[in-house]
Amino acid sequence: MAGSGCGWARAVRGLLLDVSGVLYDSGADGGVPIAGSAEAVRRIKASGLKLQLCTNETQATRENFVRKLRALGFDISVAEVTAPAPAACRLLRERGLRPHLLVHDDLVPEFAEIDKTNPNCVVLGDAAENFTYANLNEAFRLLIGMEKPVLISLGKGRYYKETDGLKLDVGAYMKALEYACDVQAEVVGKPAKKFFESALAELGVPAEQAIMIGDDIVSDVGGAQQCGMRALQVRTGKYRPSDENHPEVKPDAYVNNLAEAVDIILQQL
Amino acid sequence: MAGSGCGWARAVRGLLLDVSGVLYDSGADGGVPIAGSAEAVRRIKASGLKLQLCTNETQATRENFVRKLRALGFDISVAEVTAPAPAACRLLRERGLRPHLLVHDDLVPEFAEIDKTNPNCVVLGDAAENFTYANLNEAFRLLIGMEKPVLISLGKGRYYKETDGLKLDVGAYMKALEYACDVQAEVVGKPAKKFFESALAELGVPAEQAIMIGDDIVSDVGGAQQCGMRALQVRTGKYRPSDENHPEVKPDAYVNNLAEAVDIILQQL
Repeated sequence: MAGSGCGWARAVRGLLLDVSGVLYDSGADGGVPIAGSAEAVRRIKASGLKLQLCTNETQATRENFVRKLRALGFDISVAEVTAPAPAACRLLRERGLRPHLLVHDDLVPEFAEIDKTNPNCVVLGDAAENFTYANLNEAFRLLIGMEKPVLISLGKGRYYKETDGLKLDVGAYMKALEYACDVQAEVVGKPAKKFFESALAELGVPAEQAIMIGDDIVSDVGGAQQCGMRALQVRTGKYRPSDENHPEVKPDAYVNNLAEAVDIILQQL
Repeated sequence: MAGSGCGWARAVRGLLLDVSGVLYDSGADGGVPIAGSAEAVRRIKASGLKLQLCTNETQATRENFVRKLRALGFDISVAEVTAPAPAACRLLRERGLRPHLLVHDDLVPEFAEIDKTNPNCVVLGDAAENFTYANLNEAFRLLIGMEKPVLISLGKGRYYKETDGLKLDVGAYMKALEYACDVQAEVVGKPAKKFFESALAELGVPAEQAIMIGDDIVSDVGGAQQCGMRALQVRTGKYRPSDENHPEVKPDAYVNNLAEAVDIILQQL
């Protein structure tokens, strides 16, 4: 992969990085850094390239998420994280929506300032252990009882990998509620174009000078390419060999891990 | 509805009845009979019309289901019930499939004779309280780990009504697993044509002389019509007024409840 023929790495001014599966493998134990990734983040910053994390993480507030990343050795600040919950709060305010939340307990503080009385929409995140039969029925009943059900989903991932195995992601539960209520969810997070655009705005680099690096062939790679970015798939995290035969999405390149991507990109600067 | 203009009720020799929402409203408390339905079943039998229950019930073995119906006042025997689990067992045997079961505890005995070691498919029923985050992740991991994932769903209902409110049905969880694993489930139960055909065979009456009576506009009414039966929607159970504007399915008639349907049908005999 390295050496000549890496035209995809030219004229880069900023990187968007997915987090889980690229920087670390998440898990109930807090997770494990992927070898070389913390050093790769330091090298990106030292090179003068801009960097923004673009994550669908909805199991914690950005503050707690950054605290966890720092404990794992990543030099990251809150402003360097683009995540669905703050984007959802902007959308709720713009449209006067009052959410019923089916999200992880640790995400709830992100919605502290939002009026949640007499809900007129449901916001679905990766609720993990909160995806109980009772909670899903409650969200369903609220939706089906609305004159015009509004379902907002923080991402639409199929699954992700934790240290103890693969887990169903929010997208699976979104599909369950979509089907039961015959509605289509509005997705806030990757691969929504609007979400990538806000990440680029925070990165401060136009799409054609940015590269997205992720482990999800559809959400990370496909979504970023639809916004005019180049996109790499790492062979870490939820990557599976069958991704390389994906019928619709073809990354600009595959790399074994973030460290290899950064090696190649820095050689072209 | 009664009186003249009920051509749909002519030349009938047998009735297929949905159960939950037609005979009774189910619930954790055992459920409550719908007024007039037990008497209607007696009148059907006294008239000489054939009768078969055609249910997607998967929260109990047929034996226990019939015991519950009898306790609620319905004169029904096990042979008069067509249900998904026995049909699924036939399919598993025919194809040498060894299921991992994600079903209600009370349904497990239906699969007693089936080899369940080293599963090569997942069978999904209305697992109710067994639809936990852990159980869904387990079924997902088994499926995604199969070279060719096989998901068999006992019905694909969106939701049903219990005495304490609407509940998500198996179809919603089927959609979650379908999306996560990028597979299409095989449905055993209504509205699958093969399932209606076995109910008709057990009824012993050809499609054109049978009427299906149910509360589910898609699964009961649409499914039966696709098999060449006439079909009525009752305004009990999960019926909602918006069903009467369904974009695809139009029942042969609406009736307020089973008793009214039987009144009209018996008048035409």
